[in-house]
Amino acid sequence: MANKPHISIEEFAKLDMRVGLVVDACPVPDSKKLIKLSVDLGSDYEQVTILTGLLVFYPDPTVFIGKKYVFLPNLAPRMMAGIESQGMFFAIDSGTGDPPAPLEVATHIPVGAVVG
Amino acid sequence: MANKPHISIEEFAKLDMRVGLVVDACPVPDSKKLIKLSVDLGSDYEQVTILTGLLVFYPDPTVFIGKKYVFLPNLAPRMMAGIESQGMFFAIDSGTGDPPAPLEVATHIPVGAVVG
Repeated sequence: MANKPHISIEEFAKLDMRVGLVVDACPVPDSKKLIKLSVDLGSDYEQVTILTGLLVFYPDPTVFIGKKYVFLPNLAPRMMAGIESQGMFFAIDSGTGDPPAPLEVATHIPVGAVVG
Repeated sequence: MANKPHISIEEFAKLDMRVGLVVDACPVPDSKKLIKLSVDLGSDYEQVTILTGLLVFYPDPTVFIGKKYVFLPNLAPRMMAGIESQGMFFAIDSGTGDPPAPLEVATHIPVGAVVG
């Protein structure tokens, strides 16, 4: 992995990173990779569906339910395996082959809180 | 806080979010707001200086030393109080007046690991 070119603060400010609560999580039918998360993002975004390709690392997606993580709900919606994903779920690739670590946040932080 | 317009995956991909280890932290002289962090970001970025305006919430910045957090090291450098800040330190604004919560990650995750 190499460095990326500099970006401006205006480019960064286009992102809307928020704290969300996973209220449901299940494997996507007929997919070997995808997990479907139902995420409460508070009053600005309400509840959205976000897909993530972590099933091989987390074969029981219920481990995410009831926890809060960092999401990017203003990423343009994308169709994946016939389902619309309405944002991104962040995870850290350690480069070691370990399961990517989601960006979990403390449960006392309110849903919809802004990350920046 | 309102929603922001959608962004494309290409716009998101311009960001280079990485795990960094805070190796030193101190108040910026003659500033009431700024903390100066010295951050080890691994071999791609090496050690950089990142300023953050959290001094009022964290009057003893040494609490950050030895911990790992999420940074944005490819944000264009900015001069703040006469010092060049070479990236961004992420924190969550709860909107409640509580101290913003930094995006701390587990210490076993290697510096330089990619967040995405």
